[in-house]
Amino acid sequence: MSKKELPVLQPAQSAPGLPGVLCCTPLAREPLGEADATDLAKVFKALADPVRLRLFSLIASFEGGQACVCDLTGEFDVSQPTISHHLKVLRDAGLVGSERRGTWVYYWVLPEMLGRLSGLLAPVEVGAEARAGALA
Amino acid sequence: MSKKELPVLQPAQSAPGLPGVLCCTPLAREPLGEADATDLAKVFKALADPVRLRLFSLIASFEGGQACVCDLTGEFDVSQPTISHHLKVLRDAGLVGSERRGTWVYYWVLPEMLGRLSGLLAPVEVGAEARAGALA
Repeated sequence: MSKKELPVLQPAQSAPGLPGVLCCTPLAREPLGEADATDLAKVFKALADPVRLRLFSLIASFEGGQACVCDLTGEFDVSQPTISHHLKVLRDAGLVGSERRGTWVYYWVLPEMLGRLSGLLAPVEVGAEARAGALA
Repeated sequence: MSKKELPVLQPAQSAPGLPGVLCCTPLAREPLGEADATDLAKVFKALADPVRLRLFSLIASFEGGQACVCDLTGEFDVSQPTISHHLKVLRDAGLVGSERRGTWVYYWVLPEMLGRLSGLLAPVEVGAEARAGALA
């Protein structure tokens, strides 16, 4: 299958490694517990590498929402095994899903994980409530 | 100054290490460049540790929006120098601001950085446009 024949994305498909814990209270609203922090740190560790971040962004923004590993390797000055390793790290962290079709493996970003991360990092207004408390 | 006398938060104050690059297009909308990915990976690396994540969340959710280092150390099974090291990593990544007041250093989360991270990780709808392209 060529990249011009990509089927419609199936965004709801989950990766096996998707941590179930990353839901949903912003970490600025209440303190993270130890178990949640351990799970979340693994996801951030997967994103804490420039090549993985670029891979992740490239997949996420790829036309049609998914990319063949053959679409990705040309963008980086690293070997295909290295790219495959980075993709495995992203998949194990629950950030991307993948499926083999013939010779190639296709990858797509799992939007629910993106949504959870975005929600966890959402700023929380330190507003009237806290200030009223400080003045009381 | 006791923690009961915390002044009103100054959320707009920036840390010296705040990367200027982290703005504003979701990484699912267009591929991250190399320089942006390098800067962003440093921020995620700062968050890729369970103790730092809990520290960050504890500061962010602390009553009044800021916390003295004396408020934080009791929550962790690590030494105060270790806590101070982790706080320095968070500060250097532009995630928290800090100020010494007498004996203690006070920390607060920089909400603009949280907002940028949250925006960068926002899911992008793979919607009608991409599907129409796939079907054309």
